[in-house]
Amino acid sequence: MNKKGLLIVVSGPSGAGKGTLCKALLAKHNNLTLSISATTRQPRRGERNRESYYFVSEKEFTEMIRQNDFLEWAKVYDNYYGTPKKPVLDMLNSGNDVLLEIDVQGALQVKKEFSDGVFIFIFPPSIEELKSRIKCRGTETPEAISKRIKSVYDELKYVYEYDYIVINDNIDKAVEELSAIITAEKCKTKRNCFNIDAIRREAR
Amino acid sequence: MNKKGLLIVVSGPSGAGKGTLCKALLAKHNNLTLSISATTRQPRRGERNRESYYFVSEKEFTEMIRQNDFLEWAKVYDNYYGTPKKPVLDMLNSGNDVLLEIDVQGALQVKKEFSDGVFIFIFPPSIEELKSRIKCRGTETPEAISKRIKSVYDELKYVYEYDYIVINDNIDKAVEELSAIITAEKCKTKRNCFNIDAIRREAR
Repeated sequence: MNKKGLLIVVSGPSGAGKGTLCKALLAKHNNLTLSISATTRQPRRGERNRESYYFVSEKEFTEMIRQNDFLEWAKVYDNYYGTPKKPVLDMLNSGNDVLLEIDVQGALQVKKEFSDGVFIFIFPPSIEELKSRIKCRGTETPEAISKRIKSVYDELKYVYEYDYIVINDNIDKAVEELSAIITAEKCKTKRNCFNIDAIRREAR
Repeated sequence: MNKKGLLIVVSGPSGAGKGTLCKALLAKHNNLTLSISATTRQPRRGERNRESYYFVSEKEFTEMIRQNDFLEWAKVYDNYYGTPKKPVLDMLNSGNDVLLEIDVQGALQVKKEFSDGVFIFIFPPSIEELKSRIKCRGTETPEAISKRIKSVYDELKYVYEYDYIVINDNIDKAVEELSAIITAEKCKTKRNCFNIDAIRREAR
């Protein structure tokens, strides 16, 4: 009974608090592993290669695209971001749940291939709160901040492609909701055909 | 923002432990109310009118059918069972979640009218366990027991009509799964159009 792991895809505007929530969720679930993305962007202060991202050159990245090595990839703010395919598939097949923290464009690509994935959109409690969070981060230029805020409205158009929304107005509550989504998804009938068939055979 | 309540429908073979799980779930969720069914069967020891069931005569029951007063009804083991419609709709409209503990036939009727309901099937850990639980209950004749066990296989055919299955091999774990299902369902995108639209308006 080697049950496949759950693919959990989390998106949401920058500043909605995805990173904090994902970290807390990973701490709570032993069986959940964060997929590490590849990117061509420069590391921010404190980010380390092979932990935060695989930091690769544009040449390496485009070669991986050519080899069809990405589950999804996108060019955002002049940089490439992508999810290497093989490690994700290996983890799922060995029964581990995998968490992808990716943008809307990437999530839509993953959804085409993995309709069985669980797609969650993280909302900030309000747009005002979102703006102040992005500004407080202090790691971006004013131009980048204004570009990010302008893109929020566009991203929100795709919310209806997601299965769930979690509003991050309280971290503990939001993490509890994310945990509940994982637990509930594992109870979905479509994910338990093995159990059902075994019990029906026994009852015959 | 008067959000409608969630309609949660729980079914499963007699002896799977539905009653115990529902009681524990109700104790955990203030906002959740058990719908009381009407029935023409005789009260078992300890059952009280208007608490366990509305115990009504066959004449009263058939008159309610005629008036279209039931959300679902069925004749099982020579007795009628049904869910009076009005109290359920009133609770949902006032934002309360409602729990229906009903059989498979009833659930399928409710599903036709309430495709938005949450349909959960409770499994016993094994068929052997189920048989021994039904026998231990000691409130039924041998004929009734044998009739019940024979019907389990028929019920299991309809499991795929349900959204979730919960295997009751450990009460605490099963209650946690039921709670998670409620929490997760409240995060479903389709149930949060109000929030999404408000945030999108703010971002415009």
